Amino acid sequence: MKALAWPTVSKIVSTIKLPSEQWRVAARTRLDSLTKPPGSLGMLEDIAAQMVSIRRERSAEPLRKAVYIFAADHGIAVEGVSAYRTEVTRQMVLNFLAEGAAINVLAKLHHVQMNVVDVGVNADFDAEAGLLSCKVRKGTCNMLLEAAMNEEELAQAIGVGIELAAQAKSRDESLLAAGEMGIGNTTAASAITSALTNTPAALVTGKGTGLSSSAQARKQQVVEAVLRKHLFADRMNSKEPLEILRCVGGLEIAAMTGLMLGAAQHEIPVIVDGFISTAAAAIAFAIAPQVHSYLFAGHQSEEPGHRVLLEYLGLRPILSLNMRLGEGTGAVLAMPIVESAMHLYNEMATFASAGVSEAKE
Amino acid sequence: MKALAWPTVSKIVSTIKLPSEQWRVAARTRLDSLTKPPGSLGMLEDIAAQMVSIRRERSAEPLRKAVYIFAADHGIAVEGVSAYRTEVTRQMVLNFLAEGAAINVLAKLHHVQMNVVDVGVNADFDAEAGLLSCKVRKGTCNMLLEAAMNEEELAQAIGVGIELAAQAKSRDESLLAAGEMGIGNTTAASAITSALTNTPAALVTGKGTGLSSSAQARKQQVVEAVLRKHLFADRMNSKEPLEILRCVGGLEIAAMTGLMLGAAQHEIPVIVDGFISTAAAAIAFAIAPQVHSYLFAGHQSEEPGHRVLLEYLGLRPILSLNMRLGEGTGAVLAMPIVESAMHLYNEMATFASAGVSEAKE
Repeated sequence: MKALAWPTVSKIVSTIKLPSEQWRVAARTRLDSLTKPPGSLGMLEDIAAQMVSIRRERSAEPLRKAVYIFAADHGIAVEGVSAYRTEVTRQMVLNFLAEGAAINVLAKLHHVQMNVVDVGVNADFDAEAGLLSCKVRKGTCNMLLEAAMNEEELAQAIGVGIELAAQAKSRDESLLAAGEMGIGNTTAASAITSALTNTPAALVTGKGTGLSSSAQARKQQVVEAVLRKHLFADRMNSKEPLEILRCVGGLEIAAMTGLMLGAAQHEIPVIVDGFISTAAAAIAFAIAPQVHSYLFAGHQSEEPGHRVLLEYLGLRPILSLNMRLGEGTGAVLAMPIVESAMHLYNEMATFASAGVSEAKE
Repeated sequence: MKALAWPTVSKIVSTIKLPSEQWRVAARTRLDSLTKPPGSLGMLEDIAAQMVSIRRERSAEPLRKAVYIFAADHGIAVEGVSAYRTEVTRQMVLNFLAEGAAINVLAKLHHVQMNVVDVGVNADFDAEAGLLSCKVRKGTCNMLLEAAMNEEELAQAIGVGIELAAQAKSRDESLLAAGEMGIGNTTAASAITSALTNTPAALVTGKGTGLSSSAQARKQQVVEAVLRKHLFADRMNSKEPLEILRCVGGLEIAAMTGLMLGAAQHEIPVIVDGFISTAAAAIAFAIAPQVHSYLFAGHQSEEPGHRVLLEYLGLRPILSLNMRLGEGTGAVLAMPIVESAMHLYNEMATFASAGVSEAKE
């Protein structure tokens, strides 16, 4: 399998550096000099230290924020795993372009550049203003019957994300969010999560966009059958992340994996969104553990598998608002928090400059 | 005791109306018509519905945000209950005015009007630009020996907050945050929490701005002695909230209680900050339960008593970032989330307008 996707990925993996430990230590020292009890900004201090270790001397520059929303369809949707019809993927892409979706509202309010990427929607779009046309194919195959994609398609889809990360770098974007739209994609994320983290399907298969309990039970059976079909249920300890992605993933998930690998290569932090976005992050992390240092978890979604993935990744979510929408909404909503951490780091007075007495001790 | 403070408060209490249930229902209907799975915006939908029930037809107007930071000193500080010297209250007020504190940075970034209120700092300020001089007295008495304040002082301090809420109304401010600064005030908040919620001091006395474990143990003994002194330990079931506030509260806590009562009277929502701000909210709630409908909990602080108070109030924190700074920082940090909820509510397309298919069912 590695024949096609691996060269695309491996040349990235070998160039991903860890952020600067020296800058992280310097950031902690500065944080302790600011006019507040040491550590009293909690997670904001962790965020600031991580951002400074990534951005180094550029930490005082304003952040240029962008969200990438990857849309694709899923062959598995014919198995009745979603509360919505498959045409909703296309309809929601048009809604993104018409600026009517939740992510549009949040991106506008928080000054985040929107990028809508068709990496595999099962529809033909006219030359729609604002749509990035990177279609690999019109949706994945039904993974209950065959692999979701072949090796070349996987390499192409990952390549879309890698290329967009390079473009982000050229535009000097400095904080990315990775979101998605794809009817059926929580089923793919559940299968990835189960295979990658060795967790039973029952624990990682949720209600998605709003299934009934009986439909959820059916979806769980589908996930189990998919895992058996691709033998992941049998060889739990010899799983190759790219092969999991190819067999039970999605084109938008592969593109997000590429975006995260490419962003790490270019030293750009990425805020991961919900369950599907985090499944992409988990694949990237399994391939290249250093990616971890460039990731933030925007929020804790309602999907049960999301918690499993965040634990696997060792990421603590910034927000926890019972959201389960996708589109990058949880990631963009966390951007003002990350931005707040950076402004506090850069703009607060020190005890010395403000003439404030430090703790007694 | 009611002689002086109660008239000030009771005329407010009698005029606080509940928000519109009709608008809340209408808001839920609209939320379900927006292009997202029903309920998928989680807590943002609850926030939007609450805001709409308060603001009614004004819900589409932009929010005018303001933070009120009440500063005061505490007589109990001589008992060694804080990691900082008492002069830090004065120094931090000057830091607020010089725009060097954490709250300044957050207020500036998120376009929130700052108001610094001296309600009882143990220092004389020159006519400092930007300081609202509402000093009731130079710090409370040592509540280990006598009541923190007398009846007239309590009424005055509450009155400061009530008056500022009226001024906020006249400026058309539509989302307030209540923060504070006062060395020693977690001790007062712990005593209030223990007395009001019938919780042992050991469970509600934390490290404040950063005490050692041994200093925390000493602080806990002080809280227990204070409660015994004022007989709250003995008559747990006959406690009058204003009497608790007078005996073991603080001038800034009383002013915040007044602000929250006044804001509810004028139908202005208030985001409560951390432990001390929430202690003020708990007193307001104990006096006038309808205040609850106008409150949001900005965040879950690290102080153990804060959780007890949020449970007492039945409020779920918007953020949980291990912060323990005060100043209104957690409340202001939650403002972009509340603002996001309102923008989503007002600006998202509906299924009908966007031509997106609803769930199959």
